[in-house]
Amino acid sequence: MTRTHTQSTPPRGAARPRRTARTVTLARCADTLERLRAQRPLVQCLTNTVTTNLVANVLIALGASPAMVDIPGEAGPFAHIADAVLINLGTPGAEQRAAMREAVAAADRARTPWVLDPVAVGVLPVRTALARDLSGQCPAVIRGNASEICALAGQADGARGVDAVHEVDAARTAADELAARAETVIAVSGPVDLVTDGARRMRVANGSPLLTQITGAGCALGGVVAACAAVTSDPLTAATAASVLYGVAGELAAERTRLPGSFAVELLDCLALLDPETVVARGRLT
Amino acid sequence: MTRTHTQSTPPRGAARPRRTARTVTLARCADTLERLRAQRPLVQCLTNTVTTNLVANVLIALGASPAMVDIPGEAGPFAHIADAVLINLGTPGAEQRAAMREAVAAADRARTPWVLDPVAVGVLPVRTALARDLSGQCPAVIRGNASEICALAGQADGARGVDAVHEVDAARTAADELAARAETVIAVSGPVDLVTDGARRMRVANGSPLLTQITGAGCALGGVVAACAAVTSDPLTAATAASVLYGVAGELAAERTRLPGSFAVELLDCLALLDPETVVARGRLT
Amino acid sequence: MTRTHTQSTPPRGAARPRRTARTVTLARCADTLERLRAQRPLVQCLTNTVTTNLVANVLIALGASPAMVDIPGEAGPFAHIADAVLINLGTPGAEQRAAMREAVAAADRARTPWVLDPVAVGVLPVRTALARDLSGQCPAVIRGNASEICALAGQADGARGVDAVHEVDAARTAADELAARAETVIAVSGPVDLVTDGARRMRVANGSPLLTQITGAGCALGGVVAACAAVTSDPLTAATAASVLYGVAGELAAERTRLPGSFAVELLDCLALLDPETVVARGRLT
Repeated sequence: MTRTHTQSTPPRGAARPRRTARTVTLARCADTLERLRAQRPLVQCLTNTVTTNLVANVLIALGASPAMVDIPGEAGPFAHIADAVLINLGTPGAEQRAAMREAVAAADRARTPWVLDPVAVGVLPVRTALARDLSGQCPAVIRGNASEICALAGQADGARGVDAVHEVDAARTAADELAARAETVIAVSGPVDLVTDGARRMRVANGSPLLTQITGAGCALGGVVAACAAVTSDPLTAATAASVLYGVAGELAAERTRLPGSFAVELLDCLALLDPETVVARGRLT
Repeated sequence: MTRTHTQSTPPRGAARPRRTARTVTLARCADTLERLRAQRPLVQCLTNTVTTNLVANVLIALGASPAMVDIPGEAGPFAHIADAVLINLGTPGAEQRAAMREAVAAADRARTPWVLDPVAVGVLPVRTALARDLSGQCPAVIRGNASEICALAGQADGARGVDAVHEVDAARTAADELAARAETVIAVSGPVDLVTDGARRMRVANGSPLLTQITGAGCALGGVVAACAAVTSDPLTAATAASVLYGVAGELAAERTRLPGSFAVELLDCLALLDPETVVARGRLT
Repeated sequence: MTRTHTQSTPPRGAARPRRTARTVTLARCADTLERLRAQRPLVQCLTNTVTTNLVANVLIALGASPAMVDIPGEAGPFAHIADAVLINLGTPGAEQRAAMREAVAAADRARTPWVLDPVAVGVLPVRTALARDLSGQCPAVIRGNASEICALAGQADGARGVDAVHEVDAARTAADELAARAETVIAVSGPVDLVTDGARRMRVANGSPLLTQITGAGCALGGVVAACAAVTSDPLTAATAASVLYGVAGELAAERTRLPGSFAVELLDCLALLDPETVVARGRLT
């Protein structure tokens, strides 16, 4: 009853100059899925207590190997050997905050790509301070909803709770500025997702409103971004591919049910079923 | 992939003298459901690590917007802006206990209604002391099983574990006394739920034994009580409506499956499907 | 909406000299299932935040009564009254580590059987030190994958993450030696599970690869081992029966679906449906 972890191999085609690519194609998104299945990247998750189970199951369904290593003394050493790290600020207790700082510092030293998900940043002071601090430490991608990205960019106070009150387009300028300032990729989730590195800007029109009817759908997307960042050296590709893969699976699940309990089950099933052909056929990238 | 949070509006009909109503009607329970869907109250949850995911998903399915903000430095400020607060003592670590005290004090100042769920109180010393302390700080509702209510009233030692060993009727006197002493509403869960403010007493005969076959069904009911308390100014109505809404959804789910894994899925689906007409038709209030 | 907890009664047939039995039969595995249903043992779980919900639901589905009591000041007293204790090192924060030491010491004094699940031991220093320490304090059973057992026995560094990189057979010698040294039973999970007390060795060929496609399947098996240890005085029987019961339910679930989201649901349903006749008919013990 165990899984055999396959050692990660370097991404195929690593010599290709992906960083200078002008756009991300659906073919590249499909290729990212194939890499996930083939390489089974080890994704270290420091995430919230509400949605950790969903984050782990989403990652497994896509082919990655999640490991929730989030205590001081272990988070740092593990970030050295992980293929990517997710930092999700949903329930950042003191011990986990210390572990997050340790993991980010270690990821930086080891050049392990890491992803920041600044949940509910803005109105909540502890995580807001931490998010502002960590966002300066070279995350590969920052993923949030429009309110979170606006708040992190210093342009708004964020939402009252965990849900966005801003439209994605309202966050466009904030996202571009934050991407340029932090030298990172910003992924803004919404009805149409926006991914930008300050210069290149991708839009992903996949997804389903049902993803807003289960807790942790956004958190799980953050995990998928980290997994994709483990298998491609271009963060813009990682964030865009994550959005496409997850959004297409969400659409397929929404075709099977319109109710939230069943939807969470179908989402995992559809992520496991997802294949490169479906990604190319159904992805909506502009 | 975000949800737009709608600002809460004052309850419609807030001028009606609900506090002096003699009983709670099924029409009022149905009205509470409509308010949940229309107002999307922001429900802050400080709850246990075992069932936090179910609590959040149950609240979303009913129309509320849960936010698990449970660390010191954030729990207090957030209780000022939340529409209701849930304090569930299932796994009360030291940091969460500090956050609970902070949230309750802030809720008291901001007149945010808050609900206490004293899980497994009685035999376990840390939570028992905390529950006795917090129960004196004006919770809108205390919800527990018969053993927990007896223990909190000082009439018994509670159960061995998280499950009741006392019958609901055995807790009737304890519930009445505790309601009068703490000037609160007591909701006792069991085959027939009992809700009392010390003077008025409601019984709800909805529900299903399958609710005892999944972990966290009681915890989720506590969350529903908090959500209902956010949209009605009468705690007796809130606790009664929560019991009816949740119990009817549980019955509907039990008509679809008799097995626990499927039941948890169907419960969320049936909560999302629940409409006011069904509440009136199937509610069993005495 | 509560469950009435039935006081545990002494195992039927407790006078039979189970400790000297040479092997574990399928009849005994089926008998263990009947005891779980009849006695509803109270299983205290100190487990990780990722899979605690699944662990609890699996235990309920099999008939046990889980209680996640894992804070200092409560973990010790509760280990006195619980019928068994599970110690799972998946996310061992400082407070939980203190509670684990308290629970193990109390279980030792009260002769409550306890089970150690040394998740991801080897490469991660904090849990590795704790696991080595606790493994010397008379656990009834230590359950892990091959990499974890090898690491705990000091024969390897463990895996990179939470998944095994060693084959079960590679852990055979390590398991035998560790069993003899710690005077405990070692259960090694894999395609064919191995259970040994250093002298007797059982193999269980039940299970499904789908159990590796959901997070926490191994953790839940650890909980089942603890539940079985509560109703039989022979740890070899407990670990073997747990492996058979869980493996057969996993096979039944895999006959209903091949996808991970549905599989987690079906696993709980099949555990609830499991009966002694099916255990005898489908168990594969050698």
